[in-house]
Amino acid sequence: MSEQAPLPLSPTPRSTVNRYPHRAADHRQVLYNVLDSGLICHVGFIAEDTPVVMPSVYGRDGDTLYFHASRAARSARIFAEGAPICVTVTHLDGIVYARDVAHNSVNYRSAMIYGTGRALVDEADKLKGLHVMAGHMAPGAWDYGNRPDSRDLLRVAVMCLDLSEASVKIRNEPPSNHGKEPDLQKWAGVLPVQTRFGVPQPQGDVPPDLAVPDHIAQRRMTP
Amino acid sequence: MSEQAPLPLSPTPRSTVNRYPHRAADHRQVLYNVLDSGLICHVGFIAEDTPVVMPSVYGRDGDTLYFHASRAARSARIFAEGAPICVTVTHLDGIVYARDVAHNSVNYRSAMIYGTGRALVDEADKLKGLHVMAGHMAPGAWDYGNRPDSRDLLRVAVMCLDLSEASVKIRNEPPSNHGKEPDLQKWAGVLPVQTRFGVPQPQGDVPPDLAVPDHIAQRRMTP
Repeated sequence: MSEQAPLPLSPTPRSTVNRYPHRAADHRQVLYNVLDSGLICHVGFIAEDTPVVMPSVYGRDGDTLYFHASRAARSARIFAEGAPICVTVTHLDGIVYARDVAHNSVNYRSAMIYGTGRALVDEADKLKGLHVMAGHMAPGAWDYGNRPDSRDLLRVAVMCLDLSEASVKIRNEPPSNHGKEPDLQKWAGVLPVQTRFGVPQPQGDVPPDLAVPDHIAQRRMTP
Repeated sequence: MSEQAPLPLSPTPRSTVNRYPHRAADHRQVLYNVLDSGLICHVGFIAEDTPVVMPSVYGRDGDTLYFHASRAARSARIFAEGAPICVTVTHLDGIVYARDVAHNSVNYRSAMIYGTGRALVDEADKLKGLHVMAGHMAPGAWDYGNRPDSRDLLRVAVMCLDLSEASVKIRNEPPSNHGKEPDLQKWAGVLPVQTRFGVPQPQGDVPPDLAVPDHIAQRRMTP
């Protein structure tokens, strides 16, 4: 994954955070961090005048996001037509318990990218996209597993999106009393929410003496 | 949260799962389970011909989903106009490592709901929505904390969506060899992805001898 020097995010009107602007990040490195530490994204597109929000795996290389539509038939057709899309990656980091229920909140990091989705056609482009996504979703798998062949590439739909128009919003704060006098008889604070990997479950045909490879056994969440 | 007897999901063309239909669930109880064990949703709507995907907390009561738009100003206006929306809740349950990188996948449960968003106006409706969302996002908080007052209700934007048009898709399988002879020298299987709560972090003004209440200290993820 190539890295570029941190550049400011250049928000357009639609990618500008209007509510709680102090929660908006203004450096591309923050965007990269939110994307690189996530596991799935939600892709929004319009199908017959209706918004559709579809989960997908993804990967980032520089200022390009690759994703793999699970309902490939419909979405791939829509992306091929150069339709506007919105991709959002959200980390839920904590449940914020305030003394007033109405002030309960969540701590989170969320990146929202607007742009035009593009379905990759060339074999080399698709291979690149799969490589980037494998590096993100399953680091180490590209070198360990069998590489995709032409038949695999024909079967798969790989989409990409430019990261030029993006916004990042982060809440990482204790609860707010919203100016009210706190009732110190009541507990308030944050319950962290964490994602972690469990114990690897081998497929049925894996020989019992075949160890789980390190890139899986040692995998930890990207902070 | 009131429960209804399980009813079949009644898919319309747009909520019908066309790809891998064996992964589509057909009972409302499966939809309820996916929604009730999630923490955040992604709400899709159309703003000036562009799809927008916005994360939100939510809660379910029977066949109504309540959610709380974080960019309230714009989205609340759009929902008040009865615009079409799509709400998706996704659980990532595992990274699926196949012997062929192109066959890597993820195990997941995903619910997609189509409908017309509605911004609640009446105080009683908003209070109900906040109660349902608090019960979901922070079980026990409604009884422990201070209830919302009229000023809180005025300040907050609560949206709702009918669960009548929904689809659920679940992948809970080992990797597929896609008909290829497996290379038994290579490991294949599933790395589970789990969400859990960490150690509660008290707000700075909480007296050191005030114990973390049970509804927070004992909280576990809904399976």
